[in-house]
Amino acid sequence: MTLQLHYWPTIQGRGEFVRLALEAAGAAYVDVAREPPARGGGESRLMRDLDDPANARPSFAPPFLVDGDRVIGQTAAILLYLGPRLGLAGTSEADALWTHQLQLTVADCVAEAHDTHHPIATGLYYEDQREAAMARARDFREQRIPKFLGWFEKVLGRNPQGGLHLVGNGLTYADLSLFQLVAGLRHAFPKASGRALAQTPRVAKLHANVGRRQRVRAYLQSPRRIAFNEQGIFRAYPELDA
Amino acid sequence: MTLQLHYWPTIQGRGEFVRLALEAAGAAYVDVAREPPARGGGESRLMRDLDDPANARPSFAPPFLVDGDRVIGQTAAILLYLGPRLGLAGTSEADALWTHQLQLTVADCVAEAHDTHHPIATGLYYEDQREAAMARARDFREQRIPKFLGWFEKVLGRNPQGGLHLVGNGLTYADLSLFQLVAGLRHAFPKASGRALAQTPRVAKLHANVGRRQRVRAYLQSPRRIAFNEQGIFRAYPELDA
Repeated sequence: MTLQLHYWPTIQGRGEFVRLALEAAGAAYVDVAREPPARGGGESRLMRDLDDPANARPSFAPPFLVDGDRVIGQTAAILLYLGPRLGLAGTSEADALWTHQLQLTVADCVAEAHDTHHPIATGLYYEDQREAAMARARDFREQRIPKFLGWFEKVLGRNPQGGLHLVGNGLTYADLSLFQLVAGLRHAFPKASGRALAQTPRVAKLHANVGRRQRVRAYLQSPRRIAFNEQGIFRAYPELDA
Repeated sequence: MTLQLHYWPTIQGRGEFVRLALEAAGAAYVDVAREPPARGGGESRLMRDLDDPANARPSFAPPFLVDGDRVIGQTAAILLYLGPRLGLAGTSEADALWTHQLQLTVADCVAEAHDTHHPIATGLYYEDQREAAMARARDFREQRIPKFLGWFEKVLGRNPQGGLHLVGNGLTYADLSLFQLVAGLRHAFPKASGRALAQTPRVAKLHANVGRRQRVRAYLQSPRRIAFNEQGIFRAYPELDA
């Protein structure tokens, strides 16, 4: 059955981690809210489905995945579900859990990246929290980016099956998510992430390798890949980089 | 084999969600860092084990769980692992995934609660980011607490097996984690959470019911339960409540 991904139609956001897994696996899916409204897409459909009273297990927020009668929310939970089904979670139960642990750490860094431009309230404009954003972004650049990327570098260095993948010797959704995290950091913090990546060559190489994979590259070059923009999580505000 | 929980010895923090699951299930475990240093406890042991070079799959931060030769980090991943083993993840694969989705949403709210007192940088003192904390706490009180608790109220109301549990008709780690979230909010934001809980009676009842369960109550009254304090996630700073 064709999988349905429900997410904001104009940003990469958290949905992008799911899109990348689906694309890298060549899965049949519909990005529902990106369909024309006449064909059941659009944000109003997204909001209606999110709060569908017939769903006994509603999600808190997009993204959510529909697979037949299953509705699954939370990016990491969606990937936990899809991972083994798409062949993107290693080769054992231990691998699957480790892949998930890596994903949760990516998610922590993504949430912190978001809060660099919205440290006070998601509902306020960036311009109204710019001073706090400058302070938070400085800490993120100086402390957090090196710490997160340094940890992934360590994980790659300790992988007994070689440092080309985070889990074993094959692609998992953790690799795809680290690719996306690095892509986002390079967009939002080109100077700071450039410095950090110079210290984390295995992470930089993984990012390059994942982007060169046939299905991933085809996706990135297709109109299905939404460009980074200043409504998403990773925003290129020059005053937040240094 | 006795499970080993590794977490900061002086706070509830994120480790508390694991402690509650272990305690509610009557599991045999050691809270390693709370052992005396002479018996292998203490923070220096915690930091050493976190970065043990012999561990090919190191965790980013505490808590982590050791079960024989398995080492698992990230609170939600630990609970994903423990849930079925402790009988705290429902009765089906779908229940287990839904329990995890609920946990991830609790975790999102916990991270936001933390950032009310540290909106700029974890490495700075609260006093040095107090102004931003006041603004962020206001948004958390007015927007986020009602939204999160309102969502859990909806989930309880839609549970086809009755509104006493989040998943099916038995205790899961999601119930325990919602209990802990409510306990923390009541400590840190007694006024704001009191208002929100008046609008979410099922959540308030779940919190009361979980706290009355025999093993949970015994734990809460034991010296193993660390009191809330102003080094943890939920901090009673009166100026952040209203």
